[in-house]
Amino acid sequence: MYLLKQIDDPNDLRKLKPEQLPQVATEAREYMIETLSKIGGHTGASLGAVELAIALHYAFETPKDKLVWDVGHQAYVHKILTGRRDQLHTIRQYEGLSGFLKRDESIYDEFEAGHAGTSLSAALGMAVARDLAGEKNHVVAVIGDSSIMTGMACEAINQAGHLGTKLIIVLNDNEMSISPSVGALEGYLTRLRKGQTYHRLKDDFEEIIKAIPGIGDLVLQAAKDVKDAVKATIVPGVFVEELGFRYLGPVNGHDTKALIDIFEEAKKETHPVIIHALTVKGKGYAPAEADQSAWHGTSAYEISSGKFIKEPATAPSFTAVFANALIDIMRKDEKVTAVTAAMPDGTGMSKVMREFPKRAIDVGIAEQHAVTFCAGMATQGYKPVVAIYSTFLQRGFDQIYHDVCLMDLPVTFAMDRGGIAGADGPTHHGLLDVGYLRVMPNQIVMAPKDENELGHMLLTAIESGHPASLRYPRGNGFGVKMDESLHQLEIGKAELLTDVSGDVAIFAFGTPTYAALKAADRLAKEGIRVTVVNARFAKPLDEDLLIALTQSHRLVLTVEESYLNCGFGSAVLEMLEANNALYAGPRIVRLGLPDALIPHGSQSLLYAKYGIDADSIYNRVKDTIAVLDGKIFASVR
Amino acid sequence: MYLLKQIDDPNDLRKLKPEQLPQVATEAREYMIETLSKIGGHTGASLGAVELAIALHYAFETPKDKLVWDVGHQAYVHKILTGRRDQLHTIRQYEGLSGFLKRDESIYDEFEAGHAGTSLSAALGMAVARDLAGEKNHVVAVIGDSSIMTGMACEAINQAGHLGTKLIIVLNDNEMSISPSVGALEGYLTRLRKGQTYHRLKDDFEEIIKAIPGIGDLVLQAAKDVKDAVKATIVPGVFVEELGFRYLGPVNGHDTKALIDIFEEAKKETHPVIIHALTVKGKGYAPAEADQSAWHGTSAYEISSGKFIKEPATAPSFTAVFANALIDIMRKDEKVTAVTAAMPDGTGMSKVMREFPKRAIDVGIAEQHAVTFCAGMATQGYKPVVAIYSTFLQRGFDQIYHDVCLMDLPVTFAMDRGGIAGADGPTHHGLLDVGYLRVMPNQIVMAPKDENELGHMLLTAIESGHPASLRYPRGNGFGVKMDESLHQLEIGKAELLTDVSGDVAIFAFGTPTYAALKAADRLAKEGIRVTVVNARFAKPLDEDLLIALTQSHRLVLTVEESYLNCGFGSAVLEMLEANNALYAGPRIVRLGLPDALIPHGSQSLLYAKYGIDADSIYNRVKDTIAVLDGKIFASVR
Repeated sequence: MYLLKQIDDPNDLRKLKPEQLPQVATEAREYMIETLSKIGGHTGASLGAVELAIALHYAFETPKDKLVWDVGHQAYVHKILTGRRDQLHTIRQYEGLSGFLKRDESIYDEFEAGHAGTSLSAALGMAVARDLAGEKNHVVAVIGDSSIMTGMACEAINQAGHLGTKLIIVLNDNEMSISPSVGALEGYLTRLRKGQTYHRLKDDFEEIIKAIPGIGDLVLQAAKDVKDAVKATIVPGVFVEELGFRYLGPVNGHDTKALIDIFEEAKKETHPVIIHALTVKGKGYAPAEADQSAWHGTSAYEISSGKFIKEPATAPSFTAVFANALIDIMRKDEKVTAVTAAMPDGTGMSKVMREFPKRAIDVGIAEQHAVTFCAGMATQGYKPVVAIYSTFLQRGFDQIYHDVCLMDLPVTFAMDRGGIAGADGPTHHGLLDVGYLRVMPNQIVMAPKDENELGHMLLTAIESGHPASLRYPRGNGFGVKMDESLHQLEIGKAELLTDVSGDVAIFAFGTPTYAALKAADRLAKEGIRVTVVNARFAKPLDEDLLIALTQSHRLVLTVEESYLNCGFGSAVLEMLEANNALYAGPRIVRLGLPDALIPHGSQSLLYAKYGIDADSIYNRVKDTIAVLDGKIFASVR
Repeated sequence: MYLLKQIDDPNDLRKLKPEQLPQVATEAREYMIETLSKIGGHTGASLGAVELAIALHYAFETPKDKLVWDVGHQAYVHKILTGRRDQLHTIRQYEGLSGFLKRDESIYDEFEAGHAGTSLSAALGMAVARDLAGEKNHVVAVIGDSSIMTGMACEAINQAGHLGTKLIIVLNDNEMSISPSVGALEGYLTRLRKGQTYHRLKDDFEEIIKAIPGIGDLVLQAAKDVKDAVKATIVPGVFVEELGFRYLGPVNGHDTKALIDIFEEAKKETHPVIIHALTVKGKGYAPAEADQSAWHGTSAYEISSGKFIKEPATAPSFTAVFANALIDIMRKDEKVTAVTAAMPDGTGMSKVMREFPKRAIDVGIAEQHAVTFCAGMATQGYKPVVAIYSTFLQRGFDQIYHDVCLMDLPVTFAMDRGGIAGADGPTHHGLLDVGYLRVMPNQIVMAPKDENELGHMLLTAIESGHPASLRYPRGNGFGVKMDESLHQLEIGKAELLTDVSGDVAIFAFGTPTYAALKAADRLAKEGIRVTVVNARFAKPLDEDLLIALTQSHRLVLTVEESYLNCGFGSAVLEMLEANNALYAGPRIVRLGLPDALIPHGSQSLLYAKYGIDADSIYNRVKDTIAVLDGKIFASVR
């Protein structure tokens, strides 16, 4: 760390000589490999962007020049170079550095992003603002080759080319998103990488010229200029340049000198530029280069072997259970199809795709398209399942409403990472889904209480004949016994898990049901009997059961792992109001996430902090009963 | 109508000779101009697609071959040809034909769409389903040149090119969306239209060859083949063909024979094809051709003059008031910018763009990009306003959350058509916004009670320093007196409009406040005193006032023009629960739209049908009081 430890901000970096930068890169890489080996993180992406980060801060006058990273997890070296070197060991831990960029963390973090494809729009906004203000600074966006294929990035390219605003886009092309990229544009990029567009054309050209009788060879000799002209016009830019961009590259993204040279060239442009930088995900660390998907995001690892250090799983993950259930269903019903949007590993879809290569499809980072593509299949008698993270499904909000719910098409939304995502923080928490799906007509909204119920619920959704969603959390199940075969649940029926007795009822939605049961056990030991309901459905609600229990208890709690605004508890309030069962009803308490940013941190820590673990439920029941007994109920009795 | 009246479904059309089709086109055009002159409708778009609709149904075996129209308002002739000729006069009227496609209306309506850019995804889904099922039918999507630039259409093109699935895309290129198209891709299309890409390249090529000393002319003579090779490779397809599509065209979109020929050619392809058809919006009716923006959607009109027949406006529209207020604010504060997504006329932004050509920007049909583009500007000290229809902002849901709310950036969302859109129906009603915005941290959610309050609220949003939204309905204001200058409202403070008295309180959100006041007046005459509150904010709520009124009244109603699920009334319930003010509180009744598809029809009709007009509120108060007096309250008293 001889050089790295002298760099407390980019000004220190810029004092070095260009030839010292490879040394900085080596040190940064070693420091990152060492530090992340203990805590895990987005190792692969950031290893691939070491030289990019160094060369960018060297060539540009950050923060006067604006640097926008698409999806902040490629930017660990950016963090190291901008005053956060010594905090790297806290990354992704509660109250530590964010795993993504964070405006509160540093003035060098211009924009925050955990979802892909936002950088071009944000950077264009900054560039237009600069022009309006009469400033002269550069705005640079760094975007991956998969992210640039998202719809919103296409929209931004379209406007940038139209406006002709000065803007520098660095295409960090590692041929990977989290998993290998898909899509026609990816094919185009591959050809750019290899220069095939040019070669193919050049070959055609040469062949034709040669065929001109008598003079072909002579012409070819003289025609070096022609080839150059063809090359300049065609390679590799027609696609890009038709859209109003200057194309520079491809450039070796691990060569700081070459990068700085090309950045200097880009600075002179007055129009939008795309710099095509070729990088290797995991660069410089053999295990990460060898298995790029696995090394996208990792746990702690042993440096020498690259072996991941993981606690032995006590139970299968919800993701694995989902994949197995879906495979089981697809084996029996050939009308079931499945789609993932560039998350085959995270959603368990890779396993499904291996067994059903035609019926299980990765559409790339294209959530909007994924939803409407499924809607199209549904019109033809298919029963598609969108396997997706809750937070990424937000991109398809309008499509769920406009292309699925309005036509009442049978598309299933299987949402992984429903609830608190943990270390990835606010951009990845899935806390909005209950609310935004509940507002859509025809949509069924479900959450299983455990991994066994997940499969039954998936089958229920697929066979419902309507738009249907289920959400389940990140991480492992409870280790419950798994049923041998799947069966459908009755839509709109909750599951009563205890005797109906006592003063207190808890309506739980999803996995917090277990916390409710645990709290109920503890309360029972103190003589407070609690009725616990696994609601299963946030829509349609089991009105009969919930109303009956509301009328027979003096305290009703709802528990959920989503925002309280518009959530399951809110649905219960609405239903009780509509049935005139609130009036003169029991005390109702809703537990869930408050209307605020929920930070990153471990799930268990955040469950406790926000009052949805067993202890919190226990305490809340005790406290509320004390109030009811001491004050309000006393006056009524 | 000699031929047209024989056509009850496409099979009848297909019995005609090709040379009879221009006559069918003429008759259809005349019938449409005549019929729509009495009722209005999307005249321009459908006039431009007359020959397309005829040639498509002639060349393809609908409904075995699947025909997907992007945004159904171009498809009136499709309706005429598919058994709905004699119902055309009912279009867009309550219980009449939909102004868009509707699966319930016809087996020929494969997919419904009121939002742009969905057809390619849906059609690709149908094509993949066809391949899975081993069927051989064609799938054809018809999409406009503006719609094809939306992000989701780009995503679909990317996957279609990758899959190589047989799919026919007809690009209906009229150089217009609702207003003239913007964007770099539009520039590309313009060059395609004119063949400039080829010409430019050819010129370069010829010049260079000519410059080869001695032999240039000779080569040029011999090099016809070269040019053909270059042409075949470059024109106009590199852009399209790099993405895996075959490009056919451009073709005259008003020449049924040429269209049918090119469709037959497309049928033979085994890979995706884009057919580039050039059309004229409003074709065949001079007034509509002359002013294409005005004729996108029209009221009734006089055929001979093309003059619109409109009831004289009793008050300025909310749209006009918004535009004037924004101009006023932008004149005083140069940090305020404004963005529209291809709706400059509908949102009033055209007027703003005329005065501020640099600060007011149309980004095209690109709602996702629009939101994040504004977020980028906001990071640089600007205060951007997104002027948009409520229903179209749904496309930017994730961007509002991820790129604006998480960073707490000061972006204002000015939502026109908040509430019931009227004749455009469910794809255009703006009924979800209160719910989906309320769930996002940091978002301020507002609605003005009338056109005078709109300007104050817009200023309040812009100056709030946070993400803020306001929504206002389609149509004219109430004709209230307009304040001379704008002032900020206190955030989170409601407006008490009456004395606090009596048993009944109404909390109204937005323009239904006037219906509440009217109902209150009528009730007062019968001795029932009603306290009326203009809530102004759905978030943050005026907790102190609403709790106090809840405690001092025995019946509280909430009224809003949005879905009851997750709406303003739901926010009130949540707030009362959180403050323990529900328990032993008054009877609460929420009025708003139920959890169902709301059909098309006039606003006033739908307000009455769904119980949010003055009469409905009056009746609901009377009925509920009767229940309270007769049953529940009786037992308590």
